[in-house]
Amino acid sequence: MELSRPSFDALHTPQRILLAPGPTNLPPAVSQALIAPLLGHMDPAFLQIMDETKALLRYVFQTTNELTIALPATGGAGMEAAIANVIEPGDRAVIIVAGVFGERMAEIAGRCGADVDRIEVEWGRAAELEAIESALQRKAKVVGLVHGETSTGVEQPLAGIAQVAHDHEALFLVDTVATLGGVAVPVDALGIDVCYSGGQKCLSAPPGLSPITFSTQAVESIKGRRQKVQSWYLDVSLLEQYWTETGARVYHHTAPVLMVYALREACRLVAEEGLEARVARHARCASALRTGLQAMGLQVFAQEPYRLDTVTGVLVPEGVNDAAVRGRLLEEFGIEIAGGLGAYRGRMWRVGMMGYSCSEANVLLFLAALGKILNEEGYRNGGGVEAATVALR
Amino acid sequence: MELSRPSFDALHTPQRILLAPGPTNLPPAVSQALIAPLLGHMDPAFLQIMDETKALLRYVFQTTNELTIALPATGGAGMEAAIANVIEPGDRAVIIVAGVFGERMAEIAGRCGADVDRIEVEWGRAAELEAIESALQRKAKVVGLVHGETSTGVEQPLAGIAQVAHDHEALFLVDTVATLGGVAVPVDALGIDVCYSGGQKCLSAPPGLSPITFSTQAVESIKGRRQKVQSWYLDVSLLEQYWTETGARVYHHTAPVLMVYALREACRLVAEEGLEARVARHARCASALRTGLQAMGLQVFAQEPYRLDTVTGVLVPEGVNDAAVRGRLLEEFGIEIAGGLGAYRGRMWRVGMMGYSCSEANVLLFLAALGKILNEEGYRNGGGVEAATVALR
Repeated sequence: MELSRPSFDALHTPQRILLAPGPTNLPPAVSQALIAPLLGHMDPAFLQIMDETKALLRYVFQTTNELTIALPATGGAGMEAAIANVIEPGDRAVIIVAGVFGERMAEIAGRCGADVDRIEVEWGRAAELEAIESALQRKAKVVGLVHGETSTGVEQPLAGIAQVAHDHEALFLVDTVATLGGVAVPVDALGIDVCYSGGQKCLSAPPGLSPITFSTQAVESIKGRRQKVQSWYLDVSLLEQYWTETGARVYHHTAPVLMVYALREACRLVAEEGLEARVARHARCASALRTGLQAMGLQVFAQEPYRLDTVTGVLVPEGVNDAAVRGRLLEEFGIEIAGGLGAYRGRMWRVGMMGYSCSEANVLLFLAALGKILNEEGYRNGGGVEAATVALR
Repeated sequence: MELSRPSFDALHTPQRILLAPGPTNLPPAVSQALIAPLLGHMDPAFLQIMDETKALLRYVFQTTNELTIALPATGGAGMEAAIANVIEPGDRAVIIVAGVFGERMAEIAGRCGADVDRIEVEWGRAAELEAIESALQRKAKVVGLVHGETSTGVEQPLAGIAQVAHDHEALFLVDTVATLGGVAVPVDALGIDVCYSGGQKCLSAPPGLSPITFSTQAVESIKGRRQKVQSWYLDVSLLEQYWTETGARVYHHTAPVLMVYALREACRLVAEEGLEARVARHARCASALRTGLQAMGLQVFAQEPYRLDTVTGVLVPEGVNDAAVRGRLLEEFGIEIAGGLGAYRGRMWRVGMMGYSCSEANVLLFLAALGKILNEEGYRNGGGVEAATVALR
């Protein structure tokens, strides 16, 4: 006897302006790619799309790394793959913990059997190079950190860390989930050994894939492992054989084909715009957003000069109800922003200006909508839109 | 200085008739869902879609299991999640190895630290209940097997195994990647404790998600773990808090939102057709396909009565070049089928009749195309279409 059969109408979703720290709205070309005819994961036409995606990802990461692919899962899996492939049980991992995503990195390293050495950083601040150098006085396999910490809106400076790490024979692992395509991440120039991101942030693909790249040193380290990577699904030695451009493709998993289409299109648009212009667009919009928020009397959480352009954390003013304001933004304007995480739950708004969602129009609309709602909620303010408009001149 | 900027045209893919063992062609309603406005992964409207997806998955699995979700990665991750969550290092796992996917299950169990006890079965055959019972004389945590082994086209009978497993206090874990939605898989009635699938097979969603369900016993077992699940990304205790219908949702990962839309639509269509009718459609088309192939003098690989309806393995006749035939099917007819795996590479064709791709029209077209190409490649044959036509009456 069959269990009861549910009956639902065809899917219908409201239109949103996505200004949380990802996902973003999709460029029309990316949406269109999703309804291109589906190919099998071993179809020669799809293998060519994979090759093109690799070429585009190398451009986006600014790297010549051979092992540059899109993992078949979202950004969290990128973090897990990065760590699980380089860490073996007992290896020491120095992890900078300056927010929720640094915390997650330490957690995952622990699950991979690492001896985790945390460099704790106060929320809203960045780690000092000296602290990293000091932690490396004891041998470590890897130094890991989050470039753009979306829980705080802080950009961690990367310059100089690779040198310190390499001087101490450690690999340099960087999470660029919130920055790749929005803030400059020249992987080769920065000496990063393992770098991953998410497709749904500044690249504006739909969520589902995690681009990742490994330096020659990282690949050597992986080849020299004493035991297998604990995850079969995220084992890059296996994934590499499916993504190879030179050898015979070896089937590993059924690729999320449409997600690869979409990522290919999203990265093609990044190349079309050019990284330099794209980074400048994010800087310009973020600056105008911060100027507008401050003109309204609101406090940007992250300390200068470490403010992240792609995600701005701003404190909820005294007496204002976080959830009420976010609810009204969503219902009255279709605008999604995010609330605070951890200790800042209910006390912070996190506003993304990423990829296709990062535009002058969205900066002004968001400030206007927030200003109106805050006034109605009893927080008197004005001048946000005007200040941002001047900043955008 | 920026690395060189690649320049590609907008994505363009050829139309295919997908008759490999997944992915399948997509029903129009599923394609349409992919271009519905993107929602954030914590948007109330999206959380409702998740709830509806859970309800639909419970119907598809024929279960009342509370913990029934879609993992944010493809079927291979379903296998990894199923095993990684129930196995702790040192646990004994009895795994039936009757093809490539059973082999993979044993491999993954090993990476999870299991003491793996393999029940080896000749390719083309199914495991005997007695062999399973005998292996359970020594305490095991889990008995795992693949229901539809796509490398051979064999359906492993499931009746009776749960009883034997439960009598010996083992969990019963079943891979239904190739069967769910095409062959009856009444999870509760069969006593399965952990069951996972892939969205892109008989459900005809695009590849990207893996539906999974856990019985109360499996959940109890997971709650009693001595150590954390080695994968953070696939830890169902964490995923459960994001997919909960009752408590406060806790953010875990950025859901592959569009893939959830698509899976929801695909499962809605399964409910609309009804499981019974859907399984009958698969049986009818598979039977006609086998009849047609045999009329052409070809040999179906799997032994009676264990032939899988969703994937038919057929031996490449003497003197015929496997790759040439598959290449011509793809180029001249746009039809994709798969080649053999392992020892049967070059010696077997694997033809999927799954989900939306499973139709009378595709059976007849495929037989006609194969018959024509085989005749031109020197393998004289005739009557395939006619025999299948009679079978379809």
